[in-house]
Amino acid sequence: MKRILLTISYDGTSYHGWQIQPNAITVQQVLSDSVSNVLGTNTAVTGCSRTDAGVHANEFCCHLDCADNIPENAFLKGLNSVLPNDIVVKGCKTVSNDFHARFSAKGKEYVYRTILEEAKNPFYLRYALPIKKEIDFDAVNKFCNSIVGTHDFVAFSSSGRTVESTVRTVTACEMRKEGDFSNLYISADGFLYNMVRIIVGTALDVSLGKLSPDCAEEIFATNSREKAGKTVAPQGLFLNKVFY
Amino acid sequence: MKRILLTISYDGTSYHGWQIQPNAITVQQVLSDSVSNVLGTNTAVTGCSRTDAGVHANEFCCHLDCADNIPENAFLKGLNSVLPNDIVVKGCKTVSNDFHARFSAKGKEYVYRTILEEAKNPFYLRYALPIKKEIDFDAVNKFCNSIVGTHDFVAFSSSGRTVESTVRTVTACEMRKEGDFSNLYISADGFLYNMVRIIVGTALDVSLGKLSPDCAEEIFATNSREKAGKTVAPQGLFLNKVFY
Repeated sequence: MKRILLTISYDGTSYHGWQIQPNAITVQQVLSDSVSNVLGTNTAVTGCSRTDAGVHANEFCCHLDCADNIPENAFLKGLNSVLPNDIVVKGCKTVSNDFHARFSAKGKEYVYRTILEEAKNPFYLRYALPIKKEIDFDAVNKFCNSIVGTHDFVAFSSSGRTVESTVRTVTACEMRKEGDFSNLYISADGFLYNMVRIIVGTALDVSLGKLSPDCAEEIFATNSREKAGKTVAPQGLFLNKVFY
Repeated sequence: MKRILLTISYDGTSYHGWQIQPNAITVQQVLSDSVSNVLGTNTAVTGCSRTDAGVHANEFCCHLDCADNIPENAFLKGLNSVLPNDIVVKGCKTVSNDFHARFSAKGKEYVYRTILEEAKNPFYLRYALPIKKEIDFDAVNKFCNSIVGTHDFVAFSSSGRTVESTVRTVTACEMRKEGDFSNLYISADGFLYNMVRIIVGTALDVSLGKLSPDCAEEIFATNSREKAGKTVAPQGLFLNKVFY
């Protein structure tokens, strides 16, 4: 047996997130079914993380084990021929047998896309959050800088998933104008449940002047979820890169 | 009463085309309901053409009549606040009372987008046709040039809609590489049912060498639907411009 790392991209609109669950269509389920179909044997696929319902991935990584004689290139083509159009395999390579898509990952980058309502284009509706006012980039990036570093991000997370520690290290956080979009990029060694969407909700409140650019200090000091912004909608969120 | 011209853009994925029909959600129905809601009175909206289920519009024009004191700018904003995100009003202006969205139109331009399967991106799946081989632009544009002019396009149409004449004048037809996409642009004074999708299907057969770049000559001579290519899928098709 050899271990294969698949790099995929998906439009999450039609899926209840990555992780297999009963009575719902998930990316992991569809990919695992397609892999099993192409290999002719039931094969589990292990992902680098969960993504929520409606969240997309420009780059998502997962691994699987298969017979040594499976040719990577033909396997990639075979997979893309059976997968639905909203999941695309971009890369397929053999890795060492102790590689693990989740535990070997050193970090990940997400991007959250927003678009001014007045620039709203019906073709963006699944891939960006419409906002009413221009972003105040100075204020937002002051806030973004203030969350870089190692902090307890419990106030920037939703309950509902149990993790041992809520301390994470954010290595980069910045909002940038890109064409019609204002995009918040954030990299960290790991992310809590809804962490990016709450950080973006807080950044948008900072942009509107509802929260101070310095608000993170008090949020970290009190660990109070109520002091942070709301959880923004999933459709603007993309897993963008996985670092190994 | 005054007459207003609305310029809209829509993602046709969720709609059974433009035209109101029983037991199906259409763009005309949703727009007419929204207009009636904002104006507080039942108001019909007349479109520049029909579009098929799943077809999109970068620019679609329609007219309606309303009280003289309706302010255009506020009306546009009000409409966008009640419309779903996949229909956007881009422009709103008063026109003369004898203007008619359909009968005043001198012509229209459509664009059909294709994308190489190997460049396939899951975020394009609703907005382009995946194709397996690079386009042979020389061959395709030779075919495109051969259909420019006034011809009986009955062989490039599907039965199912009754029109008095099947003669149309194509004023421009060209396929161009634009980023990851190969896009066929076609302008004419009018289009028959499925005309663009059959012309594109024929162009793709020419690209693959299944049909000769000169095939239009025989198709026009015989008026034989069977000699043209198949009707390609709707998701790559966009109404792009309306000429008045």
